Amino acid sequence: MTYIETLGANAVIAKKALACADTRTKNNALAEISAALISNCAEIIAENAKDLQAARENGMSVSMQDRLMLNEDRIKGIASAVDELIKLEDPIGKIDTGSVRPNGMRITKVRVPMGVIGMIYESRPNVTADAATLCLKTGNAVILRGGKEAYNSNKCICSVMRKAVAKAGLPEDIIQFVDDTTREVTTELMKCSKYLDLLIPRGGAGLIRAVTQNATVPVIETGTGNCHIYIDASADTEMGVSITDNGKTQRPSVCNALETLLVHKDIAEEFLPAVKAKLDEHNVELRGCEETIRILGECVKPAAEEDYATEFGDYIMAVKVVDSVDEAIEHISRYSTGHSECIVTNDLKNAEKFKQEVDSACVYVNASTRFTDGGMFGFGAEIGISTQKLHARGPMGLYEMTSNKYLIDGNGQIR
Amino acid sequence: MTYIETLGANAVIAKKALACADTRTKNNALAEISAALISNCAEIIAENAKDLQAARENGMSVSMQDRLMLNEDRIKGIASAVDELIKLEDPIGKIDTGSVRPNGMRITKVRVPMGVIGMIYESRPNVTADAATLCLKTGNAVILRGGKEAYNSNKCICSVMRKAVAKAGLPEDIIQFVDDTTREVTTELMKCSKYLDLLIPRGGAGLIRAVTQNATVPVIETGTGNCHIYIDASADTEMGVSITDNGKTQRPSVCNALETLLVHKDIAEEFLPAVKAKLDEHNVELRGCEETIRILGECVKPAAEEDYATEFGDYIMAVKVVDSVDEAIEHISRYSTGHSECIVTNDLKNAEKFKQEVDSACVYVNASTRFTDGGMFGFGAEIGISTQKLHARGPMGLYEMTSNKYLIDGNGQIR
Repeated sequence: MTYIETLGANAVIAKKALACADTRTKNNALAEISAALISNCAEIIAENAKDLQAARENGMSVSMQDRLMLNEDRIKGIASAVDELIKLEDPIGKIDTGSVRPNGMRITKVRVPMGVIGMIYESRPNVTADAATLCLKTGNAVILRGGKEAYNSNKCICSVMRKAVAKAGLPEDIIQFVDDTTREVTTELMKCSKYLDLLIPRGGAGLIRAVTQNATVPVIETGTGNCHIYIDASADTEMGVSITDNGKTQRPSVCNALETLLVHKDIAEEFLPAVKAKLDEHNVELRGCEETIRILGECVKPAAEEDYATEFGDYIMAVKVVDSVDEAIEHISRYSTGHSECIVTNDLKNAEKFKQEVDSACVYVNASTRFTDGGMFGFGAEIGISTQKLHARGPMGLYEMTSNKYLIDGNGQIR
Repeated sequence: MTYIETLGANAVIAKKALACADTRTKNNALAEISAALISNCAEIIAENAKDLQAARENGMSVSMQDRLMLNEDRIKGIASAVDELIKLEDPIGKIDTGSVRPNGMRITKVRVPMGVIGMIYESRPNVTADAATLCLKTGNAVILRGGKEAYNSNKCICSVMRKAVAKAGLPEDIIQFVDDTTREVTTELMKCSKYLDLLIPRGGAGLIRAVTQNATVPVIETGTGNCHIYIDASADTEMGVSITDNGKTQRPSVCNALETLLVHKDIAEEFLPAVKAKLDEHNVELRGCEETIRILGECVKPAAEEDYATEFGDYIMAVKVVDSVDEAIEHISRYSTGHSECIVTNDLKNAEKFKQEVDSACVYVNASTRFTDGGMFGFGAEIGISTQKLHARGPMGLYEMTSNKYLIDGNGQIR
């Protein structure tokens, strides 16, 4: 057996006890994890310091170092997210539908755990605790493969959680850590369909692509967001400026931030200077089409084709003036990653057309794309934002981490 | 552009018109297809005769030839299945859930088409019409890659359907036929994630494996069924015999037929001779464990390990005597493909334990596994039986052929 096969086999044994555990047992384990994160805070920070030291030596950017860094406040934040998770409804055992067939047979569709979930993610060490506790609550065993930049932090958090789980009487192998960050082992994990039921990659476009290209385990693609806003001719300029500014500058590094601004030609002369004045407050770099440059002047760089296809994740925005809502929809259909798009309009027909024809997980009328988030949608927690159409699309909460089973009760029915 | 890319690009254009088509338009197209299948019956039969001739020349088995054969009655059957489909509820646009957030933003989760579905299937030509019409009803464009044994039949049925669709005012490219049955082109289809949203393979274990190994397009695995029945110590013998016989002999070639019989040791002496007497009526070959042979005698062949892992699809059944319900569940967990399993029992605890611990799409208490079927479950139609946990598990009806979209209506909300 290879290393990954051993982890897989361990997970398959552990998942059975977890699948049968009642909500109280799972919540007790979560409470133990929350307490253990706090009581082992110093140790976690010490291990995190090793990762930070390596990051500095390897010349990691300051903003990336910040994503990697853990301090007491942040660990308390992670623990309190676990406390919140305890309060959420357990989806396992929930009855979706049921019927009694004409022959008297009773069919019940119930939610069950997926089984074993593989998580492959990048630098932020809080994902280790988030993913593991979301899996625990939904009865899934998890195999965690974090980024090598956070290796020491992830390993320590994982070890703390395993001890806490054991203390609550559940098998510690419901949470396992891939103690090997080589590409070969990661690829093996993606192909380990004998033991894994689902793979969730969380990270940039490169990671997602590598997983979808190589995996034989079913995958949910998450989180690449080339999000658009379209300012219709009938838009309220002030609202358009406010939503564009919020989508671009409130937190530019996240997947639901805006990347491209499309403006109807009839409002461009009024709207573009207004939005530029606002975006200038955050020194947003604009890359525009010819018409944008004609209106705003040479301070706007010309947009290359690839700018429209890029998720900048930064204070940069591509801009294009369009002739119609149809041209806007056409542009979105060509460049979007299917995450979140917004129309600002006062025209009912155009609003309906945009909602009908834009093929993305979340389509907004007059509200910021920054709301695409499990918490904001009222799900309480999320494991990621799916940009695929299979299984789950949009923010994935606890329910989306489960599968179903049909239970059929009869008294001798045959066909 | 390669041939497959051209089909993909055509489908992406065609799907837009289909996604916006209302139910009446789609039903009109289905009615045109049904009528066209009847009025082109002679041509379809003539093309099918070419396939049958080739099949005979290549020494295809008589039962496989029968699966391939179309006559007027069978074509009428296909057309009447389309007529039934017209009556079913259209899932597109259905609102799953909705909420108003504290900030006044309204969130609505609605069903939308998947987009473009690739179907890869084996010999039976009726799948061509079934799959295409199910996709049409659910607003999905389809690319059909049927088996080479049914090449002429499939091509003809496809051409008839395309003309019917055009007559109803929809783009004929919502239904496309892969006019190339080479392995290279099929593999390219599996990797065509630029244009395809979903791949559904329908066929034997070899086909399913090839697709899950090679596909980069999301896949729903269907239809491999190594199904088990467990006769508990408390079982009613007559009911156990009846359900075993029905599961094994009513239609042995299908995926929900039984393959392995597990019997509790305390009832084996009584049950095994009774079930053998019944199965002998269909000359079912039994392959048993040592204890089975001790009870039934040398007429039972010894079961090899691989017999327990085989989907015979024939009048053959593996038999094993077990010590407990736990051993039965353990056996099922090792060998099952996760399709359908049954316990015959009068013991409440064992029934609950079996339902809880057996990790299959459909778990039966005292009813035949042959009921795992969209029609029998009351779904009206099915595209296949999913044996995976992602997206859909068990019989897949129209609802399971759709995805969702979140529509968010605001009046200027920002975060």
